[in-house]
Amino acid sequence: MTIKNIAIFGVGLIGGSFSLGLKAKGFPAKITGFGRNSRKLTRAVRKGIIDEYSLDWEKIKSADLVMLAVPVDLIAPTLKKIAPYLKENAIVTDVGSVKGFVLSEVKKIPGKFLFVAGHPMAGAEKSGAEFASSDLFRQATVVLTPERQTNRQALGIVKKLWKLLEARVIEMPSQQHDEIVAVTSHLPHLMAASLVRLTALCQKKNKFTEELIAGSFRDLTRVASSSPEIWTGICAANRQQILLNLKYFQKELDLWRRLLENNSFKELRQKFMAVQRWRQTYVQNNDKKNKTA
Amino acid sequence: MTIKNIAIFGVGLIGGSFSLGLKAKGFPAKITGFGRNSRKLTRAVRKGIIDEYSLDWEKIKSADLVMLAVPVDLIAPTLKKIAPYLKENAIVTDVGSVKGFVLSEVKKIPGKFLFVAGHPMAGAEKSGAEFASSDLFRQATVVLTPERQTNRQALGIVKKLWKLLEARVIEMPSQQHDEIVAVTSHLPHLMAASLVRLTALCQKKNKFTEELIAGSFRDLTRVASSSPEIWTGICAANRQQILLNLKYFQKELDLWRRLLENNSFKELRQKFMAVQRWRQTYVQNNDKKNKTA
Repeated sequence: MTIKNIAIFGVGLIGGSFSLGLKAKGFPAKITGFGRNSRKLTRAVRKGIIDEYSLDWEKIKSADLVMLAVPVDLIAPTLKKIAPYLKENAIVTDVGSVKGFVLSEVKKIPGKFLFVAGHPMAGAEKSGAEFASSDLFRQATVVLTPERQTNRQALGIVKKLWKLLEARVIEMPSQQHDEIVAVTSHLPHLMAASLVRLTALCQKKNKFTEELIAGSFRDLTRVASSSPEIWTGICAANRQQILLNLKYFQKELDLWRRLLENNSFKELRQKFMAVQRWRQTYVQNNDKKNKTA
Repeated sequence: MTIKNIAIFGVGLIGGSFSLGLKAKGFPAKITGFGRNSRKLTRAVRKGIIDEYSLDWEKIKSADLVMLAVPVDLIAPTLKKIAPYLKENAIVTDVGSVKGFVLSEVKKIPGKFLFVAGHPMAGAEKSGAEFASSDLFRQATVVLTPERQTNRQALGIVKKLWKLLEARVIEMPSQQHDEIVAVTSHLPHLMAASLVRLTALCQKKNKFTEELIAGSFRDLTRVASSSPEIWTGICAANRQQILLNLKYFQKELDLWRRLLENNSFKELRQKFMAVQRWRQTYVQNNDKKNKTA
């Protein structure tokens, strides 16, 4: 399998950075951006993010590898549309934030393409090709969630491309991935949204509110600035896990309520100490792993 | 009222930066650090953060202004100890994160000092004099919460000092301050602590968890690294407001649960859009005010 032609759907922050990264590393493939918006795609060509673009999905037939860098709810629908035109054994990969949902939807699509499910942990609240950067994935973690039926050669090629971009690639079952990101990414999004909503309520009662927004509010709510469309799709795709974690989270709030109601400040301090220690450990271990990647 | 001698209790990040800021602006007062730890105070003198230090609280009698830069639960106890030695009409101010509690505790302390309650919105998760900086309060908001009985001249002097440090000073009733910071600062702390606790649970089940900690987790939990002691004091001091907001917050979580359970994704998207818009407005307005301060 030689990758001479790469097709990218969704030349935004993630798709654009993937392309720029490969170019920066001198990867010898022609990269074509596919989509519906010729104005955006023309600009991406002019900026050197992609080599050329096409609005004609039939042209996908020359692609050896297709990167679906579209929102999670559009991955399978996009694949469904292009599948009839794909060459046999074309590798198709994605960057969706939820993996179980994508895999189950992709399984319903007939075709002889080889699908490799992926999720780069990079990007956050900015979006659009104007923020694309060749080193967005450097030291970032990219999760691949192969299944028993995943073609090993295709998996190896996708892995090699991410490693070329200096990402740290780890493999795990899609179920595990979705359980973890529900806690570390999806729940935090709803927390941030809740905090903004409570602040809005507070602002109505009290005009001074927006004057007292300190750094912690900005940090905590930064993710609430990301695309409502993308996040609605993520919530729909990981609905069960998010619901489960909302339940766990409410139990946590019950804990703080109980401690405050009972004036159990000694226990509160002990809980805060454990939290401080845990956070330090996670961030340090995460740093260490990214450095030794 | 001429301020020739300033006493600072708690020469940490806040107290140290207050002192450094005044020195940087050439404010002509001798600044003495008071405390119990001679090693830390000696180092602060050597580093030029304060002019001198004293472990002898009787020496407070020469102070024209006392800055109580100690954790919120130690403000009144500290003042109670030094009150008998204070000169008549000495100005006493503080930087406590909760104002109603401090004011009610201070009212119980006999003495002819003039108390001005304050709260600079700066600092966050770092602590200790080693992080002190002369421009920590530049463009920061400092809230003063005067009451009917607050001496106007003393209020004017405290205000002038903060303005000299280029802080943006606003006045509001202590009750309003405490209501707002419960939402913008204290609740976020419990959210962050909850998220770390859920992550710890997830890590126990799933060793990959700490590998998937992305930027949003770091942002959201940064405040969970701050001092457990200080935060226990804050929770105790603003207990009622925090309990009220924990209740509101649980209602918010109920909302997300309901939307997900009912697959109401159109409504979910609309809520996310409003949140995105609100956050942008608050952050922009906050930026604007800080710039025009």
